[in-house]
Amino acid sequence: MTLDDIETPAVLIYRDRVEENLRRAQDYADAHGLTLRPHIKTHKLPSLAARQVELGACGITCQKLGEAEVMADAGLTDILLTFNILGAAKLKRLKALNERVTLAVVADSAEAVAGYAETFAGAAKPLTVLVECDTGMGRCGVQSAEEALTLARRIDAAEGLRFGGLMTYPPAGRPREAADWLANARRLLEDAGLDVPAVTSGGTPDIWQAHEAATAITEYRPGTYIYMDRSLVARGVCDWDACALRVLTTVVSAPTADRVVLDAGSKTLSSDTLGLNGFGYLPAYPEARIAALSEEHGVVDVSACGARPAIGERLEVIPNHACVVTNLFDAVHVVAGDGTVERVLVAARGRVD
Amino acid sequence: MTLDDIETPAVLIYRDRVEENLRRAQDYADAHGLTLRPHIKTHKLPSLAARQVELGACGITCQKLGEAEVMADAGLTDILLTFNILGAAKLKRLKALNERVTLAVVADSAEAVAGYAETFAGAAKPLTVLVECDTGMGRCGVQSAEEALTLARRIDAAEGLRFGGLMTYPPAGRPREAADWLANARRLLEDAGLDVPAVTSGGTPDIWQAHEAATAITEYRPGTYIYMDRSLVARGVCDWDACALRVLTTVVSAPTADRVVLDAGSKTLSSDTLGLNGFGYLPAYPEARIAALSEEHGVVDVSACGARPAIGERLEVIPNHACVVTNLFDAVHVVAGDGTVERVLVAARGRVD
Repeated sequence: MTLDDIETPAVLIYRDRVEENLRRAQDYADAHGLTLRPHIKTHKLPSLAARQVELGACGITCQKLGEAEVMADAGLTDILLTFNILGAAKLKRLKALNERVTLAVVADSAEAVAGYAETFAGAAKPLTVLVECDTGMGRCGVQSAEEALTLARRIDAAEGLRFGGLMTYPPAGRPREAADWLANARRLLEDAGLDVPAVTSGGTPDIWQAHEAATAITEYRPGTYIYMDRSLVARGVCDWDACALRVLTTVVSAPTADRVVLDAGSKTLSSDTLGLNGFGYLPAYPEARIAALSEEHGVVDVSACGARPAIGERLEVIPNHACVVTNLFDAVHVVAGDGTVERVLVAARGRVD
Repeated sequence: MTLDDIETPAVLIYRDRVEENLRRAQDYADAHGLTLRPHIKTHKLPSLAARQVELGACGITCQKLGEAEVMADAGLTDILLTFNILGAAKLKRLKALNERVTLAVVADSAEAVAGYAETFAGAAKPLTVLVECDTGMGRCGVQSAEEALTLARRIDAAEGLRFGGLMTYPPAGRPREAADWLANARRLLEDAGLDVPAVTSGGTPDIWQAHEAATAITEYRPGTYIYMDRSLVARGVCDWDACALRVLTTVVSAPTADRVVLDAGSKTLSSDTLGLNGFGYLPAYPEARIAALSEEHGVVDVSACGARPAIGERLEVIPNHACVVTNLFDAVHVVAGDGTVERVLVAARGRVD
């Protein structure tokens, strides 16, 4: 199979670009004594998760229990689940998962810890639980070092649980703020006699600044770095060439001199803007702007282009946000260096719970 | 299975609400002498497509060839494909589909017509082709009645093609503008001696104004009306009670007094705002605002709520846009009037090409 055999819209994954992105991040982490634990939300592919580990990652990060189950099925052995797991059904699944892989999970409330404690009381293998910390993102997480200490003590005191350390997803662009927060909390916990085995932060936006927090953290969890995207080019994290995920589209209409329409809309590219103007970048027509999406159409303003794409022409789009595009497709097309293409099912897609 | 057995996040489809929405629209169409051809993009479920036809629809509308194939496989027999189909592989599939169902497709360019003409030259059964018209939406479609005439003549003259009429997706809130455009084009074509068998428009936002265009159109293609959503409540098309698709979520965190976090983010609710503030409506907490989404988290501002939802509490969300939510889930949970629940695979989901 070659690119010409692919019907559009389709997701292309350029294997060489993936490899380069993975190696570059691993080399950076190695140079700064950081451990990587990549987030698989971006690709949801066991083969790429395995490759990340092969290159030096200590394990992987999953956001959904269902994703972690798929990765365990595929042979991944060390998983951090960065989500509060609540409710009897999910806790039962969590217990089963803990029996077959090295697993850690997070908590940011007494309720979450109580659920883990009840489930794992008397378990042969304890569950490792990290305290999730809100270091400025304004999402989940305890709000202060004192709250972190209270929760860590609660975990430490529970029979079937083991306190695993501190976890945060920091606000993009403020890595020092998160590092200071974590260093302070770690100090407080250690002063209180608690061992803090891991302090884990993440995020591709600040990946090349991760070393600035290296004294405060033990582990870094980047996700999008494997594919990169338009938002990361805009932030200066990478150049267009590093963008390994591209959406292959066809120009299906050219109704006016300044407009063409692609067969890729919000059900292909997603509506994520991440603060950007427009919905993707067309490397072949840098002056074009994907101005509007409906569900299956992308309306492109080509008024600034010298030449206009023709009806039937196939174009690559670098999306604003790679992770959400992966999530829209049952399969991606992995393009090797020699141009051969393999269709690969996105095994962990649709594992919503 | 009951609601309590469902793990979150999950999509609930309330069957009685669906039935009421379908009947109400069909009754309205019947009263005004309009024919309905519902768009299945909203539900992607053969069983609901069949129910729409059973209640009086003349057939269905699909936006993707792959969706039409799934519907044909399931026994739907009359399909309008409102998308320019280009390229040898898709044209071959189109030809195969035309052999087993009553099919019509659209074109808005000489290139699209040329592809159809070449594919269907000498075919036992001709392909019906409608001219897509841009009546103000600014997406696909010929720009003037004169262009419509030129393209209609081209279709009419092609050996394996049959001119099927005019198709538009009109701009929301301006149904008269689209009606005038179509009436004018129809007149021009009929004056030129062409028969115009169908004039088809669509859109749930203006569904209750469709009768105002009844002299200009023969057929109406609503999609979202089957489920309704927050955007349609905001437009005054329906009330909250009509919203048949709801996302069942769990409160997974309550880190501050004014914030709780749901296990439903942009990979569940999508980032579609449709011009609204926030990402969905919580019927149980009308003053709450889903202020921000990340991929698997929904951050809810509960500062205006009297009581705050508790960690572990399950909440229904009425999303901004139902169609894109369906597209994110492999299966939905259909809730019957007696509270029993059936898990149904979304058969036409992921049929991206």
